[in-house]
Amino acid sequence: MSDHSAITAGIRGLGVETASWAYANSGTRFKVFAQPGVPRDPFEKIDDAAVVHRLTGAAPTVALHIPWDKVDDYDRLAKHAEAQGVRIGAINSNVFQDDDYKLGSVCSPDPVVRRKATDHLLECIDIMDATGSDTLKLWFADGTNYPGQDSIRARQDRLAEALRETYARLGDGQRMLLEYKLFEPSFYTMDVPDWGTSYAHCLELGPRAQVVIDTGHHAPGTNIEFIVAFLLRAHKLGGFDFNSRFYADDDLMVGAADPFQLFRIMHEIVSVGAHTPQAGIAFMLDQCHNIEAKIPAIIRSVLNVQEMTAKALMLDNTALAAAQGSGDVLAANQIFMDAFYTDVRPMLASLREEDGRDPDPMAAYHRSGYAETIAAERAGGEQAGWGA
Amino acid sequence: MSDHSAITAGIRGLGVETASWAYANSGTRFKVFAQPGVPRDPFEKIDDAAVVHRLTGAAPTVALHIPWDKVDDYDRLAKHAEAQGVRIGAINSNVFQDDDYKLGSVCSPDPVVRRKATDHLLECIDIMDATGSDTLKLWFADGTNYPGQDSIRARQDRLAEALRETYARLGDGQRMLLEYKLFEPSFYTMDVPDWGTSYAHCLELGPRAQVVIDTGHHAPGTNIEFIVAFLLRAHKLGGFDFNSRFYADDDLMVGAADPFQLFRIMHEIVSVGAHTPQAGIAFMLDQCHNIEAKIPAIIRSVLNVQEMTAKALMLDNTALAAAQGSGDVLAANQIFMDAFYTDVRPMLASLREEDGRDPDPMAAYHRSGYAETIAAERAGGEQAGWGA
Amino acid sequence: MSDHSAITAGIRGLGVETASWAYANSGTRFKVFAQPGVPRDPFEKIDDAAVVHRLTGAAPTVALHIPWDKVDDYDRLAKHAEAQGVRIGAINSNVFQDDDYKLGSVCSPDPVVRRKATDHLLECIDIMDATGSDTLKLWFADGTNYPGQDSIRARQDRLAEALRETYARLGDGQRMLLEYKLFEPSFYTMDVPDWGTSYAHCLELGPRAQVVIDTGHHAPGTNIEFIVAFLLRAHKLGGFDFNSRFYADDDLMVGAADPFQLFRIMHEIVSVGAHTPQAGIAFMLDQCHNIEAKIPAIIRSVLNVQEMTAKALMLDNTALAAAQGSGDVLAANQIFMDAFYTDVRPMLASLREEDGRDPDPMAAYHRSGYAETIAAERAGGEQAGWGA
Amino acid sequence: MSDHSAITAGIRGLGVETASWAYANSGTRFKVFAQPGVPRDPFEKIDDAAVVHRLTGAAPTVALHIPWDKVDDYDRLAKHAEAQGVRIGAINSNVFQDDDYKLGSVCSPDPVVRRKATDHLLECIDIMDATGSDTLKLWFADGTNYPGQDSIRARQDRLAEALRETYARLGDGQRMLLEYKLFEPSFYTMDVPDWGTSYAHCLELGPRAQVVIDTGHHAPGTNIEFIVAFLLRAHKLGGFDFNSRFYADDDLMVGAADPFQLFRIMHEIVSVGAHTPQAGIAFMLDQCHNIEAKIPAIIRSVLNVQEMTAKALMLDNTALAAAQGSGDVLAANQIFMDAFYTDVRPMLASLREEDGRDPDPMAAYHRSGYAETIAAERAGGEQAGWGA
Repeated sequence: MSDHSAITAGIRGLGVETASWAYANSGTRFKVFAQPGVPRDPFEKIDDAAVVHRLTGAAPTVALHIPWDKVDDYDRLAKHAEAQGVRIGAINSNVFQDDDYKLGSVCSPDPVVRRKATDHLLECIDIMDATGSDTLKLWFADGTNYPGQDSIRARQDRLAEALRETYARLGDGQRMLLEYKLFEPSFYTMDVPDWGTSYAHCLELGPRAQVVIDTGHHAPGTNIEFIVAFLLRAHKLGGFDFNSRFYADDDLMVGAADPFQLFRIMHEIVSVGAHTPQAGIAFMLDQCHNIEAKIPAIIRSVLNVQEMTAKALMLDNTALAAAQGSGDVLAANQIFMDAFYTDVRPMLASLREEDGRDPDPMAAYHRSGYAETIAAERAGGEQAGWGA
Repeated sequence: MSDHSAITAGIRGLGVETASWAYANSGTRFKVFAQPGVPRDPFEKIDDAAVVHRLTGAAPTVALHIPWDKVDDYDRLAKHAEAQGVRIGAINSNVFQDDDYKLGSVCSPDPVVRRKATDHLLECIDIMDATGSDTLKLWFADGTNYPGQDSIRARQDRLAEALRETYARLGDGQRMLLEYKLFEPSFYTMDVPDWGTSYAHCLELGPRAQVVIDTGHHAPGTNIEFIVAFLLRAHKLGGFDFNSRFYADDDLMVGAADPFQLFRIMHEIVSVGAHTPQAGIAFMLDQCHNIEAKIPAIIRSVLNVQEMTAKALMLDNTALAAAQGSGDVLAANQIFMDAFYTDVRPMLASLREEDGRDPDPMAAYHRSGYAETIAAERAGGEQAGWGA
Repeated sequence: MSDHSAITAGIRGLGVETASWAYANSGTRFKVFAQPGVPRDPFEKIDDAAVVHRLTGAAPTVALHIPWDKVDDYDRLAKHAEAQGVRIGAINSNVFQDDDYKLGSVCSPDPVVRRKATDHLLECIDIMDATGSDTLKLWFADGTNYPGQDSIRARQDRLAEALRETYARLGDGQRMLLEYKLFEPSFYTMDVPDWGTSYAHCLELGPRAQVVIDTGHHAPGTNIEFIVAFLLRAHKLGGFDFNSRFYADDDLMVGAADPFQLFRIMHEIVSVGAHTPQAGIAFMLDQCHNIEAKIPAIIRSVLNVQEMTAKALMLDNTALAAAQGSGDVLAANQIFMDAFYTDVRPMLASLREEDGRDPDPMAAYHRSGYAETIAAERAGGEQAGWGA
Repeated sequence: MSDHSAITAGIRGLGVETASWAYANSGTRFKVFAQPGVPRDPFEKIDDAAVVHRLTGAAPTVALHIPWDKVDDYDRLAKHAEAQGVRIGAINSNVFQDDDYKLGSVCSPDPVVRRKATDHLLECIDIMDATGSDTLKLWFADGTNYPGQDSIRARQDRLAEALRETYARLGDGQRMLLEYKLFEPSFYTMDVPDWGTSYAHCLELGPRAQVVIDTGHHAPGTNIEFIVAFLLRAHKLGGFDFNSRFYADDDLMVGAADPFQLFRIMHEIVSVGAHTPQAGIAFMLDQCHNIEAKIPAIIRSVLNVQEMTAKALMLDNTALAAAQGSGDVLAANQIFMDAFYTDVRPMLASLREEDGRDPDPMAAYHRSGYAETIAAERAGGEQAGWGA
């Protein structure tokens, strides 16, 4: 058993980054079900994120999405966050919601479109400068729907060019994370479909380019913790977009579909100390709360990451290494499972109380009346969504 | 080799049903890219469908979607179709785009919602009466996103109840088709996830309830032609929603992703004569032309079905049965592949010419100026889409 | 929370059936790694099964596989089992390991092969009579590897015929379970690929034919607990072949790959009382312990089923139903997850002690010296495997 | 349209490498069905490979598998091949069929096992020296079955160490190809599960290490031609293990399951001229002919590769590039599909006649009496298989 102080220090140090857009309305291509109290602007999104952090103590930063979170005065936005007790996290670029991007953004066959897309990436770095964010997160919807539609290879050339220009613009202490995704919204090829593609580009770019793993962006059967372990070993893991799925990119609450998988991922992280803030791994949520209430769903998600991290911290790594070294398959597996089956919730509740928080953040949220307050206060105006 | 007259009769008899909504704008949850010339109402959708039929001679009916295709006077709509040389095909119900349906329609835990949903299904039969359509197509987005969210079993009970009531309302010469789908928009359970579920409900309902196969609605690795063969044998195949996919429900043009699969499906159909109008199998398209021009994409799709049917009709079934019976795996496979590799396009072009059509419907469409005409004429008003 | 006596009664009543062949050597197509102490005949397999039952109190029956477990005197075998404290469970037929079955058994194009295969099924019922087994378990490796190789439909006709003849031979109090499998060893079609196919055949046969679910036999993304719930509702679930997998039919220890899935399955079972012996659901293990020691792996597997059943029994179904009825997605999910996250191991250890067993069956096995004893005693002779 | 001489030159230059073990018996874990006439030693395997080459003119090399193809005198084996008109191709190592390799070979936790495995790899290079082979093909069955069983990261360290030592031993003009595989025979982790892992190791090793793509070794939905295009662009594609599959690593004849996919792969190859011998891409077959006759199955497979290459060569790349550049999705796709739908078989038959071969290699084989001859001549002795 790991010693208790290391466990509590690990838990207290863990910071999960929530996403501004997860507080806004989202849905499937079939329907967006609007919810009461949803924020109408980036400031209100930050207010909600601050509630999550106050209750959990584990969500100190909030990611922005540009242009969804465009404001006139980013300094004011950053100060608003600070005043609420949170900080601006990663800046997420968006080059998929303009009519020009029908055939791609930085990989489009049209050089005018590519220029426009790259300019947007550079603009995002301006916003990083203005908000103090140190992380640019790049996800490209680029790809093709039909065989023959475009040259796979030429698109890689265009991608590499845009990435190089963007990388060159990064300032001191800034980095860029390149996300990959198997499919959707493109259905034949995606231009960055898997970790290998992202890794190869990041390697070419340099040390400030890293891979980000969205847990919902893989083919069925992909062993995600293998990728985590591999990238950690290669010093190329930049962070996560956490969520969970049963089928494709379902964007459900992290840990809801396969909590054991989340535990295995956190084990790879914890076993090399990558859960500490010093390690620089960004633990971000990227989820869609289409049918469940958004703020409590995000609280639950933060708790899920925290609980699986706690279980991973409980793992007796010395005993595990001994069993592994001796080739005792069943003993090693049992030590591993014992940590997973340990109920860490009482310990986490105690920790919260020690830190002056309610031991049960979900219950505290429901008691707080916040949901009712925002439903009333935010009644007018236009609710934020993916397109706003 | 089958004799030539049987082949040409088979091809001439084949009717593919196009979908009114495929002429309208569609997209992914990330973005709908609007296209010029897209119809603004059901009448204009029928105009486009008529163009496809005039050029191919193989698309005599068009399916409607309610409420997307709601009009005041369905008789007028049916007459408009007739005047254009096409007929109204299946009526598709929609119980997934109202805020009430957040937790399901006929399977919702809320009896008020279930009543509303079932009433819509009954209303669709009224529209069948008004338009002369003989087919009600039911697809339910119903399901759950999270384990524990609702009782799988109770939802089946509710589903069965709504289906019974709907079935009882069917008039003489009317039937209902029950579609299944593995996932999306629900991400943990779908209430009709697979053909087995649809089949079991249809069996209980009676002979006028049949299964409809959407080719994009299966788990990876599912052998669709097996399902086709099985349902044909059980007299429970009602029809298809054709499209193609590489990953999930991509809704690409049928035959674009895996033409050999489409050939195998049509072989099962043709080998028991189910391609003839008398067999009553509905060959419908259900596709999204998100980035490609809609009318020519639908022409291409109709041609793809026609070409694969022609290849299937070319198959030497006598030789195949002999090779199968003797256990000669390679010989049987070669006979099968020979049909697939036969280039049927010249034969189909000749057939079109014999019938007074342009041998190349795609080229004829581009020469016709129709695209330019509708882009100009339909400039004002609101383009139709999934939500309109 | 369910009341304690119901929980303990539920756990005490649960019987997991272990498989004789799981005590024997197994492997992949690449290699079978032989293990020391592996049984050399059916009697020794039963000895091992009895050890598992003595330590867990939850494995009272052992399934046989014919011809792997062929003996001259089945009455003697049954008595041997009884003397060891266990009973003979299901009789599993084997129509895939004879050279005649290269193109299938009951679905072969060759009527001589079909006759031979069906005769074997009938012989298995003779063995049921002789051993007192009440369950015939049918799994067919039948299928094709190449498109066109054989007629999908004709094979269904042949299958139906063999099943009818076998069903007719069943005696009073006997039943047959029809297993399905997506793929392997056939790679294009399997003749019973999914639950729908098995269900349709069982329905036609009559009430003594039921579906058996092997948890490793599905396409990626298949929701197994949906199938469980559906078949329970239709009174057509006969039992399980439990194991777990990450990819295909990996045959790992049940609960090792996705314990939450096993919990969800057991929840469907427990929520309708189908875990009791009276319900007649057979909870069988069908696993391959290729690299781990066999007996402790089977003990672990039995414990995994027991633990997930205990968690399912802990679930507060009243609170769950209330949350479901009110449409509170997050509350319902939380109640569901609370049961899963509860650590039931101390409770189960206490129960074992109350019943005069060691609280830790795995440790007790290792202390017992049984592994060393059989390694020494079974040194000569030929170890049992899949082909013996 | 490409000009005819380029097409014929491309086809005449194409060499497919057949695998010695594909002429031997193979099967699934359930059963190996022995076939008449199967070779009893490496010399007879080469005899069969020579028949395939004589009939097709497109299979000039044959890969060996060590120790399955161990002989006392490799020079004699190479000369035997030469006399038959073929050459020795890649040397395939085998570190998965010794009892020592139960927990892995070069990644085993046991250093003694790792040493033994690495020594085998070095021995394979000795055999390359002796046979004149220039290619070492490495595939590792290494991995784990259970979470926690071993350290993912430590196994990567061990893998890297063995690869470095092997790479250092390569002589002038020799290279090594590192194969990846998603799963099987390991079921939780494979130590080289995907192209990214192989690529990263090859990059670190140097220019003589390249990735080999087995078309059956991917997760469902993986776009293989994307990987082909990416690796070609990065100068890291070493070759293919061709086969086809519907589900997992089915090892069916290449082009049998999804001929359009094979066409797309060959298009990526042909579009950069990588089909020529000068490009150094090894086009190998790695298949299991479990139920079909082996030699004709291999002839068919060679023809399938040849036909898809011919279709790819027919593609009008100038028109394609123009359509792609203008963003005309449907036109680009149509040009692409036109090439696929072109029936190239008459052209290939003519080419064979021009080269003094029978226009129909399959028919010629059946007429030749070779099958009957070897069935009679090889009646005694032990047939070769995976374990021999």
